[in-house]
Amino acid sequence: MASEATKAAGGNPDLKLQFAPFSSALEAGFWHQLTQKKLNDYRLDESPKSIKGFYYNGDPVGLPTRLTLEFSAFEVDGPTPVRCCPAIGTLYNMNTLDAFKTTDKKAMLEKEAKEIWDVIQSGAALSDPSILCRFILLTFADLKKYHFYYWFCFPALCFQEGIKMIKEPILIEHALSAKQIVALQEAYDDLCVKKETTAVPYFLLKYNEDSVQMADLKDWDTFFSEAKKVSVGVYDPCTLSQHPGWPLRNLLLLIAHRWGSKLEVLEVLCFRDRTLQGSRSIHHSVMLQLKLPALTPNSACPKSVGWEKNSKGAMGPRMVNLSECMDPKRLAESSVDLNLKLMRWRLVPSLDLDRVISTKCLLLGAGTLGCNVARTLMGWGVRHITFVDNAKISYSNPVRQPLYEFEDCLGGGKSKATAAVDRLTKIFPGVNAEGYNMSIPMPGHPVNFSEATQAQAQRDVQQLERLISEHDVVFLLMDTRESRWLPTVISASKRKLVINAALGFDTFVVMRHGLKKSPVNDCVSGDSSTSCSSSASSCASTPAGPAPSAPGSSLFSNIPGHKLGCYFCNDVVAPGDSTRDRTLDQQCTVSRPGLAMIAGALAVEMMVSILQHSEGGYAVASSSDDRMNEPPTSLGLVPHQIRGFLARFDNVLPASLAFDKCTACSPIANADQNAAQVL
Amino acid sequence: MASEATKAAGGNPDLKLQFAPFSSALEAGFWHQLTQKKLNDYRLDESPKSIKGFYYNGDPVGLPTRLTLEFSAFEVDGPTPVRCCPAIGTLYNMNTLDAFKTTDKKAMLEKEAKEIWDVIQSGAALSDPSILCRFILLTFADLKKYHFYYWFCFPALCFQEGIKMIKEPILIEHALSAKQIVALQEAYDDLCVKKETTAVPYFLLKYNEDSVQMADLKDWDTFFSEAKKVSVGVYDPCTLSQHPGWPLRNLLLLIAHRWGSKLEVLEVLCFRDRTLQGSRSIHHSVMLQLKLPALTPNSACPKSVGWEKNSKGAMGPRMVNLSECMDPKRLAESSVDLNLKLMRWRLVPSLDLDRVISTKCLLLGAGTLGCNVARTLMGWGVRHITFVDNAKISYSNPVRQPLYEFEDCLGGGKSKATAAVDRLTKIFPGVNAEGYNMSIPMPGHPVNFSEATQAQAQRDVQQLERLISEHDVVFLLMDTRESRWLPTVISASKRKLVINAALGFDTFVVMRHGLKKSPVNDCVSGDSSTSCSSSASSCASTPAGPAPSAPGSSLFSNIPGHKLGCYFCNDVVAPGDSTRDRTLDQQCTVSRPGLAMIAGALAVEMMVSILQHSEGGYAVASSSDDRMNEPPTSLGLVPHQIRGFLARFDNVLPASLAFDKCTACSPIANADQNAAQVL
Repeated sequence: MASEATKAAGGNPDLKLQFAPFSSALEAGFWHQLTQKKLNDYRLDESPKSIKGFYYNGDPVGLPTRLTLEFSAFEVDGPTPVRCCPAIGTLYNMNTLDAFKTTDKKAMLEKEAKEIWDVIQSGAALSDPSILCRFILLTFADLKKYHFYYWFCFPALCFQEGIKMIKEPILIEHALSAKQIVALQEAYDDLCVKKETTAVPYFLLKYNEDSVQMADLKDWDTFFSEAKKVSVGVYDPCTLSQHPGWPLRNLLLLIAHRWGSKLEVLEVLCFRDRTLQGSRSIHHSVMLQLKLPALTPNSACPKSVGWEKNSKGAMGPRMVNLSECMDPKRLAESSVDLNLKLMRWRLVPSLDLDRVISTKCLLLGAGTLGCNVARTLMGWGVRHITFVDNAKISYSNPVRQPLYEFEDCLGGGKSKATAAVDRLTKIFPGVNAEGYNMSIPMPGHPVNFSEATQAQAQRDVQQLERLISEHDVVFLLMDTRESRWLPTVISASKRKLVINAALGFDTFVVMRHGLKKSPVNDCVSGDSSTSCSSSASSCASTPAGPAPSAPGSSLFSNIPGHKLGCYFCNDVVAPGDSTRDRTLDQQCTVSRPGLAMIAGALAVEMMVSILQHSEGGYAVASSSDDRMNEPPTSLGLVPHQIRGFLARFDNVLPASLAFDKCTACSPIANADQNAAQVL
Repeated sequence: MASEATKAAGGNPDLKLQFAPFSSALEAGFWHQLTQKKLNDYRLDESPKSIKGFYYNGDPVGLPTRLTLEFSAFEVDGPTPVRCCPAIGTLYNMNTLDAFKTTDKKAMLEKEAKEIWDVIQSGAALSDPSILCRFILLTFADLKKYHFYYWFCFPALCFQEGIKMIKEPILIEHALSAKQIVALQEAYDDLCVKKETTAVPYFLLKYNEDSVQMADLKDWDTFFSEAKKVSVGVYDPCTLSQHPGWPLRNLLLLIAHRWGSKLEVLEVLCFRDRTLQGSRSIHHSVMLQLKLPALTPNSACPKSVGWEKNSKGAMGPRMVNLSECMDPKRLAESSVDLNLKLMRWRLVPSLDLDRVISTKCLLLGAGTLGCNVARTLMGWGVRHITFVDNAKISYSNPVRQPLYEFEDCLGGGKSKATAAVDRLTKIFPGVNAEGYNMSIPMPGHPVNFSEATQAQAQRDVQQLERLISEHDVVFLLMDTRESRWLPTVISASKRKLVINAALGFDTFVVMRHGLKKSPVNDCVSGDSSTSCSSSASSCASTPAGPAPSAPGSSLFSNIPGHKLGCYFCNDVVAPGDSTRDRTLDQQCTVSRPGLAMIAGALAVEMMVSILQHSEGGYAVASSSDDRMNEPPTSLGLVPHQIRGFLARFDNVLPASLAFDKCTACSPIANADQNAAQVL
């Protein structure tokens, strides 16, 4: 029998075995998951990662031999799809396209091949032959464009001279009896049950008249009494009748290495197991008869191949543009988060982004400041933005109020509050924005004595109270002093963080209001429960505050958040109607055009810094003096006020105490919680 | 005859003369001109101004008696429309609606009436009777909304007991012979010729059988030999057959005052002179016979009336909403200029707005910085903005790049340069914006050796040179260091002001490049010809610079603009390809979202401050030390660099000297003016 085989092989020297290579099949889910991993876990880490793919031996004719990676690829210990074989791979995700291109692919392959050769030599592959079927995935994810560059490698050790086939490959329906085929299927299923799996990549075979015996690879020596001609089975993902798939390759090296010296004929069952229209069939499995070349036990690691060809059939990487097949709105959402997450990679690993993104912001005023604040909030990923304004868009607005356009001015002008919402949605469809076209009741602005206008004022107050309750941070961005009064009172009573911004011609103030502590322990505004639980509940009752501790610090340094003043604390004048007699330049808040952008941006950056502080709005106020000290948050200082002077390109950071008789924020003003009655 | 008249009047005591009041007719041109005057000349000045209206006696029946004010109203000495009578008025344009409402209208009318009474008493009204026909216009222009509030007054002195008509008014075609009517017309025309005008408001009359004699009012005593019954003519804008118009009223007071004691019957010709379908007719002029009440020569100023009724027929002001009838695009243009002009009213009267508005700005980069710079330029009224960028808009851009929206990202993304232009036009249709979707050739970025790509790079260099030549200020707003190099070289050689902005994570730099002096006297970049003409042409050749003069100033204070460094002056590394190996966070310019808004705004504000300096880009650089000194421009400091630290909410203003071997701006680098060959 041996001589017969040798003759046949010798008689047809061209009958060499060729393998159908794997095609990598990377599903969109894989790339999405890689994106998440890159952004949240790997960041700049380029070290190799284990991932898991799988292959299937039941594909219909015509499909390429696929190795599939889907979203689950990163859970190496997770389940493999039923009746599929797992393949463990190594992911090299590079940080730059350049690194992707210049990585030494040859060395990478040789390293992997050496590891396979090692497990062959050590015998470790016998107990877990699945490690013969490995892969490399080299990637670069351009997350700005959603372009994914990748190159797959399925390392295969090679016999130097190739593998001779003793005869042409033959379908088992022509080689085995019907009984044997049934027995083969039963034997495979039994083996699966025994191994508690649904797919066995490699196994040993013995055919009898009516039955088939199967065993694990590691049982070779006991299973085969005679070792000149043996049969092995391979779970074969290939659908070609003349070729086996890639998983056979490294098995042949293993066999040649361990048992090749005695072996004359190796019969290989390329086990294919297709279910079509409810009917299972293994008849199309292929039988090969091979003469393996000799390998000495101590030979060096054989040559290896395996880098996949690209779509043009040449050696080279592939690229998939996922931006084309993703839902654009979801794409926008993940893209918007991208720049934010990037901050955590290298610069501010401790940044608590969710704290910022989940903050609900109420913007009172949708003019120059309101538009700029909203845009900066969008940049920070804030999703929940509510506008309150009662004005209409006029022709002079769009060049200074960056949410409006010329068209919004036509026909008398759209309402700012609702137009701002429309614009935010156009900028980023994932935003959750609302607009209220309403007036803020103001002291000194008499309400008409008709029942209707009185009722309207009542409704406005109630609506404002409800809105403040429903948000975390209240921005005061109006153009009059007195319109800030009622929201200050309500926010103080509800203990909401207030950020206040106001413009002069070339000066501005951005400030947080003191955040009162609750007399009862009802923590509001974020997760500062620890600081809340301190017993101090009186606010602004000790005007002098604690003695300064840092050398050179001013009298007013080290003021804790709950003792800070509000916009009205330094006022001796009660708020009155400042709009009644304003000239045109006073109405328009004439200011240098860059000022509102700067103040709006700083208002949001101040909010974010405060949110990043462990004590939130209760944090001790940073002052100009603190610029030399270690900053209290990863983002820097948490001042009480930023007063900016554009003519000098200078900011100072004053801090001041609350006034215990302040008309807006003192306990007296807040004694009556129904702010409507204060008016 | 006297008794006859008295009898007739006494016989019908109800036959009192009533006058048709003027209707004010304010044309849109008047309001436009008022807007311009208010913005540019009057500003906050509320003092009374002389203006001129006119009335016409040729209107067809049915039209109200109009006093018209058009755009020419502010040129009191200018021509009056042919065949119209001028009326001089006093404009009180108030700064606030409140002042408009609370102005003492009674006092205003009485003051004007007193002046009329004075010219009657003094006799000045005889030589210029047109001063009998005066008006008051009280206005408030709400230039934010283009709402104009106004109230007209045509002061008329009144006889306490009214004026009795001796008989019903009668058309002259029933009172005069055909010959007399022809003679009347000829006499009037002769009077006009004699007085070198086309309309005479008041005149004296004598009717003969076939002729009519006319004379000036001042010739009364010589013209009328017998003074018991005389005839006077009034140019009458009224079209009613039973009533004269308003201009007659004060004339009657004048006559009663001067000649009333002798006068028994006053015959008045209400001269109306209509041309219909080419045919002139005065036949519809009206003849009145009046008995004037007696006035003593020294009687006090009579009661006066004159405030116009509003459209509802009640006493009260009128409002015209011009925003509805103006071309919206022109409305937008003037509105945009409004806020800017307002700056000059009170705050910065010396501000040279035209200098800013007419500046042509080239923005290299239309990303985060480019968008914010463009928006601030629009706020300053800059009309000419050109973008250069070769990128497409990706999904992460709109929340940080305020010229783009979600829709711009679809289908692979629009080109930033052209999308930015589209957006500017949507914001303000009057902008003159252009976009160039092109790459800026960079050192260290090898050009492919194909002829096509080489030719493209050549074209890019030429295009860039042309663009820089055609603009006044070049903004460097790219995201790599090396892309700033070629524009720096070209701008230095062409002596253009360069404003450079660059972002870190929470730091930024905004700087102007040193502006080299020209070896020959070819002044560029503005009107700094005086400083240009100084002979110093070597730049950066004296590294130490002049000795510091101000006490406490640093070594590098007092550096004149032409000795300031550029972005590359402190670099020892030649610019290379920094994009080749950038990780995702390096590609995206990860920065706190507020940073680009602040830096973009400051870049423009710095440009404006420099443009307001008499020496422009040659101005001595302000440093942090100068914050205590008198600022060099009305807008403040003109630093070399603004380095901002968001974590500390702090800016410092370093200034540094040019390096005489700088690869970008030194004379050596610029020796070869053809920058393309430097690459």
